[in-house]
Amino acid sequence: MSPAKTKARPKRSGVDLRAVILAGGRGTRFWPLGRAKRPKQFLPIAGPRSLVEETVRRIRPLIPGRRVLFVADAGQTRSLRNVFPKMPASSFLVEPLARNTAPSLMLATARVWLDDPAAVLAVLPADHVIRAPEKFLAKLEAAAGLAAAEPVLVTFGIRPTYPATGYGYIQIDRDSPRPSGGEVFYPVRAFREKPGLELADEFLAAGDYAWNSGMFVWRAEVFARMLEAFAPDLFPFWERMVAALRKKDRRALRSAFEKVPATSIDYGLMERARGVFVCEGDFGWSDVGAWSSLFEIWETDGAGNAIRGESLALDARGCLVYNPGRLTALVGVRDLVVVETRDALLVCSSSQDQRVKDVVEALRKTKKDRYL
Amino acid sequence: MSPAKTKARPKRSGVDLRAVILAGGRGTRFWPLGRAKRPKQFLPIAGPRSLVEETVRRIRPLIPGRRVLFVADAGQTRSLRNVFPKMPASSFLVEPLARNTAPSLMLATARVWLDDPAAVLAVLPADHVIRAPEKFLAKLEAAAGLAAAEPVLVTFGIRPTYPATGYGYIQIDRDSPRPSGGEVFYPVRAFREKPGLELADEFLAAGDYAWNSGMFVWRAEVFARMLEAFAPDLFPFWERMVAALRKKDRRALRSAFEKVPATSIDYGLMERARGVFVCEGDFGWSDVGAWSSLFEIWETDGAGNAIRGESLALDARGCLVYNPGRLTALVGVRDLVVVETRDALLVCSSSQDQRVKDVVEALRKTKKDRYL
Repeated sequence: MSPAKTKARPKRSGVDLRAVILAGGRGTRFWPLGRAKRPKQFLPIAGPRSLVEETVRRIRPLIPGRRVLFVADAGQTRSLRNVFPKMPASSFLVEPLARNTAPSLMLATARVWLDDPAAVLAVLPADHVIRAPEKFLAKLEAAAGLAAAEPVLVTFGIRPTYPATGYGYIQIDRDSPRPSGGEVFYPVRAFREKPGLELADEFLAAGDYAWNSGMFVWRAEVFARMLEAFAPDLFPFWERMVAALRKKDRRALRSAFEKVPATSIDYGLMERARGVFVCEGDFGWSDVGAWSSLFEIWETDGAGNAIRGESLALDARGCLVYNPGRLTALVGVRDLVVVETRDALLVCSSSQDQRVKDVVEALRKTKKDRYL
Repeated sequence: MSPAKTKARPKRSGVDLRAVILAGGRGTRFWPLGRAKRPKQFLPIAGPRSLVEETVRRIRPLIPGRRVLFVADAGQTRSLRNVFPKMPASSFLVEPLARNTAPSLMLATARVWLDDPAAVLAVLPADHVIRAPEKFLAKLEAAAGLAAAEPVLVTFGIRPTYPATGYGYIQIDRDSPRPSGGEVFYPVRAFREKPGLELADEFLAAGDYAWNSGMFVWRAEVFARMLEAFAPDLFPFWERMVAALRKKDRRALRSAFEKVPATSIDYGLMERARGVFVCEGDFGWSDVGAWSSLFEIWETDGAGNAIRGESLALDARGCLVYNPGRLTALVGVRDLVVVETRDALLVCSSSQDQRVKDVVEALRKTKKDRYL
């Protein structure tokens, strides 16, 4: 099977670089601001713009908007088109079903591959924060150069700062550095699932583990070859997706999605493939997994309060407040997350903000769907 | 000086009993629900109705609405007339200036005295809560009977339940009980100002002290005679007030208010007079001095949360929430007061809710008057 056509395209550094933005997240951890119809990537929680807008702006020096492809379901795609009204319909790739990241990325890569098999894809989640974008872009550009030149898959690893149990880890083979484009890449020794605290401590102490960020760089044709060689359970669905895209056959695409294993790209391809490199970085990355992660991102006052909205604090410490429309007065309180929206108010111990998803679950169970 | 006219009036127990409701309070302790234009007595914080409405309803079996006289300033009187649209203008007595309780009660008593010197006044703050109204009414009726029959001033004392430092105390002379109307009254030995904690402990241990509730019962002509005999600094202003009321001369009334000592009735008359009796009671009285006082009044759940509005609590204890319009989700929090209004949100440690007035002061200083 070969691509339909190979167009010449404007290229930076000689690389036809595209961004694939995974915008299909449905997290509930930012309730009550985040709702079923407005998940995290659409929230302006890191800056004045939503996370997905920030994601597009951040890479603009390297990848202009016309080379961005969003992958999301039909509903989220409608939201995305409202956020990016100037982008053409071809910038939005609708997943027929949510089947984890491997099918999403097979679909997106197939779509790019049909356009230009030599194109390099930067796969970026829509809902992450990067506080040092220039550092990140330098690494991304180097990774794109490596992926354009060599038959490799590149993954982005984040240097751990604490024994996180909420991320997968990548073990780095520091013995075989591969310099490229001014950065150094390392072969991946192993992918490790989210560890317990003890194991996370070991990973941190060992020094050769990085957090798996879920950001990747690969050349479309290399991805296809890797799938064929290392993911025999997935490759037939790649072929079905390519055929369906070529014929614009939505039923065939849906049928492929119904049957493809619902697996992550890490599990489905990255850990099985050979020629996987990690680009290790410390560029202020955060996956903003909960309200309290914003303490690292928002400005804080001398007492460690991070407040969006007008406020008055008397003897308040370590409070995160999102209440842009009203005055918030805090008196004698510690370590709270306070989030006010039109119809719901959250007051949560900041150390228990991972339980916000339990609130959403409880609302679902008690049929208070209007708050979801 | 004698009253203009003495009308026969329907009397219960042979007593022409009137209520004087002191509705001029301007507390800031219930911010952000309570505002400058809507102080505590206008807030529905104890039940479905505002405190002043509850006050009027509570006494209705003994004192019908037509025998109620409100004392407040012009602004508060406008608010009161909105709350009680059916009451005639004559039910509202406007204080020209706020000069503490002695002038207010001289004015109110003078007004009643002009109507019927033998009328008995029950003086009741508009912003207290009484959870056992029948017990209270029995005592009030007995006190009215005593005041109608004898030349006494009756004050209501509350049996203390903890060493409160926020109330004045009344020392009771238990050696000379005076039974009347099925209740027992005692001479007052002394009035004591708000004590420190150590002294409050002593008062509580001694057993012969009661909290001074600020509720009183007296006959109009007896009050006048007591003023004349024991409050020579105040009595001339009584005479000026009577004259001004008789002539309906608002300038003269204002002038009297400008010069009268701005003193409390306790200090100005009660502690100096002879023939002062205390009616001691335990009828669920509260002056609802701060948000956390509502823990005693609102229904609480098994975890000690008292919540007005829709809520969802996960591992929350001892929280008081007023948020009738929105859903409130509490997660892993303890001992908070949370109050949501249209334009302001308060999140306060329940042990520090007396500092709410500091919030109001800070708003005033920072010119955020729109929140006052």
